[in-house]
Order: sequence, then C-alpha cells, then structure tokens
Amino acid sequence: MLPTLMTAKLNAIPGSVNAPAGFRAAAVFCDIKRLGTGKGSNKGRKRDLALMVSDVPATVAGMFTTNQVCAAPVKVSVPRASKAKAQAIVVNSGNANACTGKQGMRDAEEMTAFVARQLNLKAEDVLVGSTGRIGVTMPMTNVKRGIAAAAELLNGTLENARHVAEAIMTSDTKPKEVAVEFQLGGRNVRLGGLCKGAGMIQPGMSPTGARPASIPLHATMLCFLTTDAAVESKTLKAALREAVAQSFNRITVDGDMSTNDTVILLANGLAGNPALAAGSVRSRSDLLTFQTALNHVTLELAKMIVRDGEGVSRFVTVKVTGARSFADADAAARAVANSSLVKTSWCGGDPNWGRILDALGYSPAQIVEEKIDLAYGAPGSRKLLYSLKKGQPTATSFKTLCAAVARKEFDLHINLNLGPFSAVIYAADLTEEYVDFNKGDVTDPASLGG
Amino acid sequence: MLPTLMTAKLNAIPGSVNAPAGFRAAAVFCDIKRLGTGKGSNKGRKRDLALMVSDVPATVAGMFTTNQVCAAPVKVSVPRASKAKAQAIVVNSGNANACTGKQGMRDAEEMTAFVARQLNLKAEDVLVGSTGRIGVTMPMTNVKRGIAAAAELLNGTLENARHVAEAIMTSDTKPKEVAVEFQLGGRNVRLGGLCKGAGMIQPGMSPTGARPASIPLHATMLCFLTTDAAVESKTLKAALREAVAQSFNRITVDGDMSTNDTVILLANGLAGNPALAAGSVRSRSDLLTFQTALNHVTLELAKMIVRDGEGVSRFVTVKVTGARSFADADAAARAVANSSLVKTSWCGGDPNWGRILDALGYSPAQIVEEKIDLAYGAPGSRKLLYSLKKGQPTATSFKTLCAAVARKEFDLHINLNLGPFSAVIYAADLTEEYVDFNKGDVTDPASLGG
Repeated sequence: MLPTLMTAKLNAIPGSVNAPAGFRAAAVFCDIKRLGTGKGSNKGRKRDLALMVSDVPATVAGMFTTNQVCAAPVKVSVPRASKAKAQAIVVNSGNANACTGKQGMRDAEEMTAFVARQLNLKAEDVLVGSTGRIGVTMPMTNVKRGIAAAAELLNGTLENARHVAEAIMTSDTKPKEVAVEFQLGGRNVRLGGLCKGAGMIQPGMSPTGARPASIPLHATMLCFLTTDAAVESKTLKAALREAVAQSFNRITVDGDMSTNDTVILLANGLAGNPALAAGSVRSRSDLLTFQTALNHVTLELAKMIVRDGEGVSRFVTVKVTGARSFADADAAARAVANSSLVKTSWCGGDPNWGRILDALGYSPAQIVEEKIDLAYGAPGSRKLLYSLKKGQPTATSFKTLCAAVARKEFDLHINLNLGPFSAVIYAADLTEEYVDFNKGDVTDPASLGG
Repeated sequence: MLPTLMTAKLNAIPGSVNAPAGFRAAAVFCDIKRLGTGKGSNKGRKRDLALMVSDVPATVAGMFTTNQVCAAPVKVSVPRASKAKAQAIVVNSGNANACTGKQGMRDAEEMTAFVARQLNLKAEDVLVGSTGRIGVTMPMTNVKRGIAAAAELLNGTLENARHVAEAIMTSDTKPKEVAVEFQLGGRNVRLGGLCKGAGMIQPGMSPTGARPASIPLHATMLCFLTTDAAVESKTLKAALREAVAQSFNRITVDGDMSTNDTVILLANGLAGNPALAAGSVRSRSDLLTFQTALNHVTLELAKMIVRDGEGVSRFVTVKVTGARSFADADAAARAVANSSLVKTSWCGGDPNWGRILDALGYSPAQIVEEKIDLAYGAPGSRKLLYSLKKGQPTATSFKTLCAAVARKEFDLHINLNLGPFSAVIYAADLTEEYVDFNKGDVTDPASLGG
C-alpha cells in the first residue's frame, strides 16, 4: 500500500511515540486489570494505565468507532480531536468504560481533568482511550493513583514508550510499535506509533464517530501516533482520515467492530519544518512525503494487529479486483474475509475455493460466477497460482494449491472481471484457539474480555 | 411461531415424506460420498442417493437459494417448481454439483431425465437437489446406477422415508423427519417432511432464486415436503413462501448461505379435500389450518437443523422487539446471532451482554443504547431474567445470569424500545468442534465439505 514515491525516503528507526522530538510517555500498573478474582488471563501484575504528552500544544487528529454503542472515552475524545490543538493522551486497559452510562461519562471526563491538574494543562487538551471489559464502571481511585504515578515517571525514552505499548495490551501477545524518519523542507522529521488489537477487530472509523455511507459497518483497537512535523489542523485531519481508510479500516480478525476503536495523532511541530498545509503549492511534495510516511506507519501497525489477532495462525491479504464499484469490491472482500467456512478452511490449510465462491455469491457485491478468477501468491508477489479461471477449475493440482495455502502468510487474488474497481482486506483464519480464548471462564469474570 | 388457532388441531404422527397417501420413496448407496480417498468423515458405506415420487401428478412449490453462485440442480429445479405440477424428486449427497459449469447443468438435467425414463414420467416433472463438495463434477455412472436401484426399491413405508432422510445427510449427526395429521373439509390430511443441514447455514430463499430486497443476504439445507392435501398451484406457492419466511429463512448456524439451499413441496390431492384456493371464501378456514400445519412442520425441521448444526452445543432463540422497522429488527437479530464474539460467549456459558450491545451497535439497525432491555428466558417462557434495562445493568447477579445461559436452550430477548417491529432468529453457539470439523483434513479431499 506504500505509494511508489521515489522522493519519499523513509528510514525505519527504533521506538514509537517517543521517537519524535518533544514527546514524553510513561505507563504504570494501578490494578485495573486485576479487578476480578485475579485469576485467568489477567493474572499477574501488568501495566494498565499510560500517559503520552507533548512538551508543547500539538495539532491533533482522531478517528473513532462508528459503532452506535460507543464508549465514554470515545464520546469525550471526539470533540477534542476536532479542535486544532491538544497536548496529552491518557489510556487504560482492563476496562472499556463502555455501556457505563452517565457515571462512565463523568469518569472519562474526570480522567482527563485529573491528568490536566497533574500536568498543568487544560482538561479539553487531554484525550482519553480505554479498552477491556464492557459494562463495568471505572475503578477511579485506582485510576487516579495510576495517573499521578505515571505523571511522575514521564520521560522521552524508548523504554517508557515500550511500557505504554505493553500497558494497552489486552489479549495481544506482543507490543506493537513502529517509527520512521524522513525529510520535510530540509528538516529531519520523525513519526511513530503504537497500537493494540487482538479481538473484536473490524474497525470502521470516522473523525466524528458518525457513520458515513462510505465507511463499512463492521476490535477494540487503539492506536496512538506522534510526530514532530509541523502540520496544519485540517491537513493533519485529512491525512489521518486517508491513512486510516487504507489501514485500520481495512483489517478484520473476527468481523466484530468494537465500541472503543480509537486512533489519535499529535503533531507538535518541533522538527521546525515549514507547516504543511493542503492548499499550499509549496508543501505539495512534502505533504505527499508525510502522507506516505503516515500510510506506512498505520498500515504496518494495522497488519501487526491482524498477525497478533486472537488465535490467529494465518495472515491472508484478500485482494479483489475487477469490481463494478468500490462498494462491490469492498463487500466482496469482506464477505470472503469474514466467512466462518473460508476462515476455518484457511486454518486447515485447505484451498477450498468452493467456499470462497459461495461467500462471493451471497455478498451484496454483483458477481458473475463464469467470470471469476481466483489465484494465490506469496505476499506482494506478482507470480500467481490460479485455482480458477473464468469460474472454471484450472489444472493446478490440489497438492500444489495446498502448498500455497500452507504458508503462514499469502495473498488471495480474486478478479471479478466486471469493472475497474478494487479493494484489499487484511484478514486472518479462525482457529480453535480463538474459540477457546473467547468462550472465557465464567468462574473468573476478569478473564472475560469485552 | 405456531399461530394460536384453536380450530387447527394438528396431531403429530410418525414418519415424513411417506406419511401422506400416495407417496413412495427409496434411497441407496451408489458411491458418491466415497469418491475420494475413502477416509475421513465419509468413511463407510452410507446412502447417498434418494428418490421421492407421487403416484399422481402433484401441485408443486419450491424455494431456492438467492446466492448468486447457485448450483446446477437449483438452476434446473427453479423453472420446474414454478410450473403447476410435478411428480418426482431425485436428490444426492456427497457432491453439490455447484461451480461445475455446463457439464454440471447437463448432469443435473440428465439426472432428472434418467429418473423420468425409469418411472415413465416426463423429465420436466422431476426436480433435483444436491449437497456436498463444491466444484467437482457428478460421477454420473454411479448416479445412474443409484437411480435405477432406488427406482426398484420405491415403496410407501416409513422405513424407506427414513432412508431418504439418512441419504441426504452430510455433516448432520441425525436424520430429521416431521409429520402431522389434520382435518381439511372433513377429510383426514397428512403433511410430512425431511431435511438436512449442519454447516453453511443461513438460508435466504426465494421462489425463483432471485434476491428480493426483503430477503436477507445470508447451509446447504435441503428440505422435501409432501402432503396429500389438494391445494391449487398459486395457493401452494404462497403458502410455502410464507412458511419458509418464518422458518428456514430465520435460522443461522454460521452465517454462510449455501449455493444449494432447496425446499420442495408436493401436494398430490389424494386426501380428497376440496382443493384449497386463496381467493375462495369457502376455503379460508381450511387454508389457515393448512398454513398452520405447514408452518409447524417447516419450523420444527428448521430448528432441528440449528440444534444439529456443526459442533453446536447451544440453541438460542434471539427475539428482537421494539424496532423501528422489520428490516431493523431482522438486522439487529442477525448481527447478534452471527457475531463470533457473542457465539463464543454462548459456547462458554458467559452472559456477556457487552458483546451483545456491541453487535447491536454495529448492526445496520438503528438503536439507542440507553433504551435497550436485555433479558433471558427458558424457551417460550414469559418469565424473563433481565440483565439490562434501559441500557443499565440490573441487580441480577453474574452467577444467576450464568445459570440462565448454562441451559442448552434459551431465549434471548432484546427490546430496542423504539417502535412496534419484531424479528426472531434461531441461532447457535460457535465451538472448537465447529472449527475442527471445518478446517478439514487436506490429506483427504473427500472430507472437505462444500
């Protein structure tokens, strides 16, 4: 998905949200995750509350779940992300603060107000994210203790950013961080981010949480991005919308869209580049470079979420081409990517193209069976192994197809041969481990993730 | 779903398609299921081809998958079910004859023509159904041997009908048969049926296989119904459409709609009642009795499919009320019934209402979190255990809720409190057994169901 842009030289660098200049972060354990019996998946002491802070007010942009049942932290952050500037983010795991009514709203607001008091900021310049069990009110005594402790620990080290990446994990098995360095207007600029995912993953985010027709209806995924680039507010918001449309809004683990999906980007301008503005001829090339960097970081993070999805053993890039409309291409790709039967066949390494055709057939997308080409390829490879051409099985042997699907990662190419539109969905298989994990343990409510 | 109709006295009787007068049936093994390595789920000799025949031409009605990829037997049967009369049905398991191109069409037509020759009928009066692996052409030598053998064995015994119910099984663990007796115009009338399901189950059928806006987009399920009632053609077709809308089109096992879903009803009139006709004042009460009987038989068969779904350990009736439209009620119920996270929580006996609210929130249905009531009840019981009222958790303890969800069968009541519309979906949990079964065994292509 990284546009071919010879001028955009991105260098991967270590770290995430503390890689850019002028950001500090910290994470602590304040016993949100252990509230419950203390057994099960949340056993042991894990960090569960984090702060990320810019030294100066930063341009802000956000993208949020379009689920009609949306969590209090989303409701609090949406209007704050629509402003020009913000300066800090507080985030917790272990409790989603979703379906918690008025108390939940008071708690989310109090989290930001408490951070503001600790850091001498305005509450409205603090955004909040939460992930964890739905329907349980926040343990605010613990949360405040955690915020106060984290505020004391804030620093700009990569180690502290890693702690944040760990603190937002729920069923994730590993922290997820990406950072890049590039040039804007002759200055070195950095962009970094971290995220979490694992289950309830098929985001469909918009800047306001409202559902535009163009956004598909289908984790909690949280992602926090920082950059020291100078970018004007509207330009930053448009850039994030574009990046999320090509990354987080194109992944699915289980087809369930969370109540808490949140992406927040802070750009504090400390790199000293001339501020990027969409209307300016002067910044056109720099803007493209910035978008390329943002697309790269968000897509890498999004793919990490799918690869580390609950019980996931295979990562499949579903590429639909030749559709009559983007909506058709998207619907076709999602029908395949979310079909229980297709996903279980991937789990078994079975190239069951009958199930793929079946899913295409019941999708809302217009298809003609006799026109469909199906092929497998190594990730990103143009060398395709066809299982079906114009709706007819090819001579490729079952064994050869099995070998293609036995790979941990592969591309599935579906050409509908009806039009010029295409769509990509990054998908996963459905395994016994997913079921085992999500059926939970009713003797331990704390193990039952939201 | 059985309407409260005091005049409609239905008596359950043994058997299925041979219970009504003037029907004969037989089933044989002709090695369709074993084509493959002969290992795996199709091990052993099982019946795989069946005939059902009326002694006289019968009024016919059919409902068929709306999947755009539809199997050859569906394409052959749709126009024949739209005629006034038919007389026989041939059906096989082990091969879906789907995605088999022109050869598939020739084979499906030849199956009916061969039956017609054996029984001295016209090919156009023979309908055909298939279920099994997608994308493999029919072993026609075996099929014809099977048809000839079955034609020799045709008789009106309940034992032979049971053989048919067994012959259409794929991943089903048990045969599914229902029959009832009732009075029409002073005559004893019988109606019976048999069906199969197990996986790829979320039918959305229409009489023509075309997709009306009102039919949801989501087994192979096959169902064959016979009655000795006399019913006029249009009336029979309308009655079947109504019955399927309230039964097979309201079930889901895994959300995947098959390429082969088929329901066929033959009414041979040998009970001697005055023929039912929708326009006639005289038959109004009898028509209601017939519809009640047909609704009862189809709903019982539909529920058997869900209970015997692949790996299913729990049967949940999702009842959505208070929606602004039927489309909203239906969409809300299907979002919950097809959510991987809700289904895995049912598997674990976890009353995870957060996941239910989440699914309602991302469904296309309009909802308001603060208005939603959620409750559990025993099947059909009006005694409700509320977990949520107006979006707020009730005082009901987690343990009490767990006990409600621990039942093998329960009702989930969701009141959106926004309008007068309601919808029911009969649903199942998602288990490790489902995944294990459907990931298949790539060393044995014959085990990989369509």
